Amino acid sequence: MINNNHVKLEPNERLDDLLTHQLHIIQSREVFSFSMDAVLLARFAAVPPRGKMIDLCTGNGVIPLLLTTRTKATIDAVEIQPRLADMARRSVEANGLNEQIKIYEDDLREFHKQRHGMYDVVTVNPPYMPAGTGDTNENEHFAMARHERNGTLNDIVMACARLVRTGGRVAMVHRPSRLIEILETMRKWKLEPKRIRFVHPHKDAEANMVLIEAHRDGKPDIKLLPPLIVYNDQRQYNEELIRIYYGDKAAEAAMAEAETRNTEK
Amino acid sequence: MINNNHVKLEPNERLDDLLTHQLHIIQSREVFSFSMDAVLLARFAAVPPRGKMIDLCTGNGVIPLLLTTRTKATIDAVEIQPRLADMARRSVEANGLNEQIKIYEDDLREFHKQRHGMYDVVTVNPPYMPAGTGDTNENEHFAMARHERNGTLNDIVMACARLVRTGGRVAMVHRPSRLIEILETMRKWKLEPKRIRFVHPHKDAEANMVLIEAHRDGKPDIKLLPPLIVYNDQRQYNEELIRIYYGDKAAEAAMAEAETRNTEK
Repeated sequence: MINNNHVKLEPNERLDDLLTHQLHIIQSREVFSFSMDAVLLARFAAVPPRGKMIDLCTGNGVIPLLLTTRTKATIDAVEIQPRLADMARRSVEANGLNEQIKIYEDDLREFHKQRHGMYDVVTVNPPYMPAGTGDTNENEHFAMARHERNGTLNDIVMACARLVRTGGRVAMVHRPSRLIEILETMRKWKLEPKRIRFVHPHKDAEANMVLIEAHRDGKPDIKLLPPLIVYNDQRQYNEELIRIYYGDKAAEAAMAEAETRNTEK
Repeated sequence: MINNNHVKLEPNERLDDLLTHQLHIIQSREVFSFSMDAVLLARFAAVPPRGKMIDLCTGNGVIPLLLTTRTKATIDAVEIQPRLADMARRSVEANGLNEQIKIYEDDLREFHKQRHGMYDVVTVNPPYMPAGTGDTNENEHFAMARHERNGTLNDIVMACARLVRTGGRVAMVHRPSRLIEILETMRKWKLEPKRIRFVHPHKDAEANMVLIEAHRDGKPDIKLLPPLIVYNDQRQYNEELIRIYYGDKAAEAAMAEAETRNTEK
């Protein structure tokens, strides 16, 4: 529950409603805001009822905040950008979640070294593009969120593999164009991909996102989950998306309304 | 066009209508009949307007037969089981396609050796299961069609890579459970996966089939195509399946009928 006395906003920051469990998050146009990718990952990841989780490349902390609605586990979160780590820390405080979430301003290439095998689950929504590709006009905050400037895919997967315990899980969201590289890199670091789900904006569109869960030291046995289709033919969120964003009650209400529209037609 | 004078059926064989372009195929309950997998692969594969194609593990020859509706290319086809190769050869003759399709009774592990880089496109619907797994009570014909008794996945991918020219394409259908192994093996043999499409029996079901196209010596750049959903919520074939099996006119008729049903409701 938000406590307005705990909300500390800097200039050009706003407090956004996460629209679930009264959670709020500090955002700013000057830095990378959370995207659907993070929201889907926070739902996709298998979570232990308690234990220890960690979120890498946490940005403004949206994944740990959302994970608190699903688990009592403690959640560490690592962000290399001071500005974002600070926003994440103030969001945690604003939501009264200091007991459950701890934000570290650190480099994941260093962070894992003293924490081998300490976590049950790792989540990560990394930069999608290799360093040196794409738009070079964007500001530093966006560039760092989008490009692998502070660690390659290999560095990130290695950090995940080191942090998670044997039998523990690593859940990642990424671009399908890098699927093969991701699968090969995970296997190289003894993370066996077990569940893959592709996200398609429409049912007739190519996937533009992939959710992957791997088990540390697991046996090969992969499942390709049903596709997640974001928009229906009426360009509205599909039921599952409404459920993920706004909860079961909202989804049921939306479906009842759609049913009414169909009957009236 | 079928010429009944050319149809030579052995005991326990039947002539099935492929329901497109007046094509027919000889089948028998005693051996492996073609499945949806082969039909989807024959549609999925990119085909050159002319040139040379080859189908490995061709069984009773359904893929070359269906490919003739899409290309003027000559199509070689290889099958190791004498019974199936003979059926395929008689089906080709029955359809008057001796000029376009040539059936070889051979072992793909040998066949490729004198034909390096000779083909523009290779298609293959291989056995899905490693040797020694699954039901051991089935008859020899079924066991050989389902299990890698005459070549492992590696042997098959290597044969594809050897047969296809630089820049040529290899299209395969397989089980999603073996996805990572397939991708790794393709890359090992310089076949770069470029297009992947998962087939789901229903929109809420895991994928039970995967279609993969790779380019010989291609650059990494993969597309995850829209999911192919076989059945709709009314347990009928979706429009795309009707289109693949029965053609565009049938699909349009089916859609018009569904529209009428919806309006009457």
